[in-house]
Amino acid sequence: MLEELLKNAKAAKASVAALTRAQKDAALLAMADALEARQNAILDANRADLDAAAGKISDVMLDRLRLTPARIAGMAQGMRDVAALPDPVGTLLEEHTRADGLRISKLAVPMGVVAIIYESRPNVTSDAAALALKSGNVCILRGGKEAFRSADAIVDALRAGLAAAGVTENAVNLVRDTSRAGAQALMTADGYVDLLIPRGGAGLIRACVENATVPCIATGTGICHVYVDAAADLDMALNIVENAKTSRPSVCNAEEVLLVHRAVAADFLPRLRARIGDRVEFRLDPEAANIIPGAPAGEKDFDTEFLDYILAVKIVSGVEEAVAHIAAHSTGHSDAIVTRDAAAEAYFVQHVDSAAVYVNASTRFTDGGEFGLGCEMGISTQKLHARGPMGLREMCTYKYVVRGSGHVR
Amino acid sequence: MLEELLKNAKAAKASVAALTRAQKDAALLAMADALEARQNAILDANRADLDAAAGKISDVMLDRLRLTPARIAGMAQGMRDVAALPDPVGTLLEEHTRADGLRISKLAVPMGVVAIIYESRPNVTSDAAALALKSGNVCILRGGKEAFRSADAIVDALRAGLAAAGVTENAVNLVRDTSRAGAQALMTADGYVDLLIPRGGAGLIRACVENATVPCIATGTGICHVYVDAAADLDMALNIVENAKTSRPSVCNAEEVLLVHRAVAADFLPRLRARIGDRVEFRLDPEAANIIPGAPAGEKDFDTEFLDYILAVKIVSGVEEAVAHIAAHSTGHSDAIVTRDAAAEAYFVQHVDSAAVYVNASTRFTDGGEFGLGCEMGISTQKLHARGPMGLREMCTYKYVVRGSGHVR
Repeated sequence: MLEELLKNAKAAKASVAALTRAQKDAALLAMADALEARQNAILDANRADLDAAAGKISDVMLDRLRLTPARIAGMAQGMRDVAALPDPVGTLLEEHTRADGLRISKLAVPMGVVAIIYESRPNVTSDAAALALKSGNVCILRGGKEAFRSADAIVDALRAGLAAAGVTENAVNLVRDTSRAGAQALMTADGYVDLLIPRGGAGLIRACVENATVPCIATGTGICHVYVDAAADLDMALNIVENAKTSRPSVCNAEEVLLVHRAVAADFLPRLRARIGDRVEFRLDPEAANIIPGAPAGEKDFDTEFLDYILAVKIVSGVEEAVAHIAAHSTGHSDAIVTRDAAAEAYFVQHVDSAAVYVNASTRFTDGGEFGLGCEMGISTQKLHARGPMGLREMCTYKYVVRGSGHVR
Repeated sequence: MLEELLKNAKAAKASVAALTRAQKDAALLAMADALEARQNAILDANRADLDAAAGKISDVMLDRLRLTPARIAGMAQGMRDVAALPDPVGTLLEEHTRADGLRISKLAVPMGVVAIIYESRPNVTSDAAALALKSGNVCILRGGKEAFRSADAIVDALRAGLAAAGVTENAVNLVRDTSRAGAQALMTADGYVDLLIPRGGAGLIRACVENATVPCIATGTGICHVYVDAAADLDMALNIVENAKTSRPSVCNAEEVLLVHRAVAADFLPRLRARIGDRVEFRLDPEAANIIPGAPAGEKDFDTEFLDYILAVKIVSGVEEAVAHIAAHSTGHSDAIVTRDAAAEAYFVQHVDSAAVYVNASTRFTDGGEFGLGCEMGISTQKLHARGPMGLREMCTYKYVVRGSGHVR
């Protein structure tokens, strides 16, 4: 059955890639309308998912899985927002005509078939479909088994919207096999899947990176650091650490580790504790533990994406030790320095090898919307193809078109 | 031993990435000088490789393996040419300042550690090292076992050049284990290798794509097509096919398959035979076999990279059938149409999903030098990150640098 789906997806590639902006936008609006028109069917399916999952998954997971009329309206609005974004397909990236008259053009073109493996958030289904369609890609969606009924009802609505707009329904495909074998088959669908994007926890991403033979982009694991330098404005540092740690701890751009210069630790840490100590549990290295109360940091606390109100704290001797710690423990997502010292800033920016390097700002800005991309398919933590927030442009590749008049070499 | 090499390479990353253009160019010139200064040692090592390989590999392979003073001079000149190219590192790709004053910059930065697995051409050793260094990358080179002594002598010279220029020798590293296990260890060196580039035959590339867990770019397999349309200028088509097939059949951008529109086949094929039939063996589909003499095309002849004076020929009903054949059989490298019909051209350009799509020109132009990149590390036939010729720019990734004054979200 997956084989049939893969063949249908591949067969739809050319016509989806050739859609004009007007056709894609009309389809996105029709898909958004269909989501709202089928709200009751989607909520019923979601209720069945929630009932089946009750008692088996955590309350946090249940909340991620839950749909409401307001959440469905948000999903529809998300699709309309994508319709309003510029179309990346066909953009002339570069062009030059050689002295012999041969014209070489480099054009943005869709990847082709993009597979997205994700977990329990039903809104990923419509978000991913919208970004794929707008960028001229066919998508294959494979959500978690606990959210299957919801995803199925959402995809039914999306395909109805596509049909209403005169676009092939095979632009959006849902994998019905939610077993591990189903995911594995998708990861190795060479010749069918042009790009695989896992969206979810570290385990899922690791499984894709290890097992995929199709091109894959690792996204979203964020062990983000904030380094408070000796030359930091400590009031600014307090604001940044509070924001990076507590404004939304469950997301990948939240801070997990605080590095503090020894020279300011005795001043800074008690003030930090006064500011966020009521909400945040500290995991302290021995030196920090001599300054403020808190749990001792265990071996793994500097390599854990807590996604919670927990902050690991380490005292360092300066920017060089901070950078060395980040090199050894960062996931390459977002890391920040707070300093007024130009030399420390320059060293940090040059040496920290992460998708986003911050100076005197919170790591929480690493986001497609905040970076001006209008949307995002995920945050790439690898270096190949896309790094940091992936927007519509990053869902495209390019091709060279070379025009001559009988040119030979 | 590979572990120590990997650690050394990783440790050298930051200092190599931070080299200025002047430092890198001085090192490249010193490396070129060292190649020439150590010419005798390199030729001795190459003689030992040739003696050991004699009788075990084909004459073509022996010729690829052979070094001469002229070839060594060519390798040195290649390094000097790379020194003259612009430095891609640090290029400001995009920058904008948000209304709230947060400045977001996107900068080109090196990948880090680039591993290149290749076969028996000793010149790849110096070419790859030059491109890696100029793009701020540390390289790990792993050549074929039959060329190990040559590669070892070349790398000794390159490292002497690095040392003379005051650059860490660990910028260029040679893997001494030429077994399959050695290659496998490199393919799975997660956390050490930022990019793996296989350069060689289809078997090597397939092995890397299937086994690599580090990011990998597939290069260089070219089953390239030329489609001669009903509206083609047949004189032009003759020139293009002759050039694409016979100017250098052993390279990946050479033509392997000719598709001819039925309406012109009876006119075109006899003229083609008169032009190149003395040098080229035709493998003909049944319809073409009714027009000119030649061997019947077997099942695999439309899926083989001959790299030889062999051309598979198929008659098609029009541009749609040509495009469908290319979709089913092309490796996505370079495919051409010869036509004067704007509609056929537009259809071909829109629907052929290859790195380079040609109109009225030979596929032989797909090359970093010809495309104006100045050099090339290989021709990518995948869609992720780089497509077509990979130059210095494609050896880089980017990072975002975000500067604020206490910005929080």
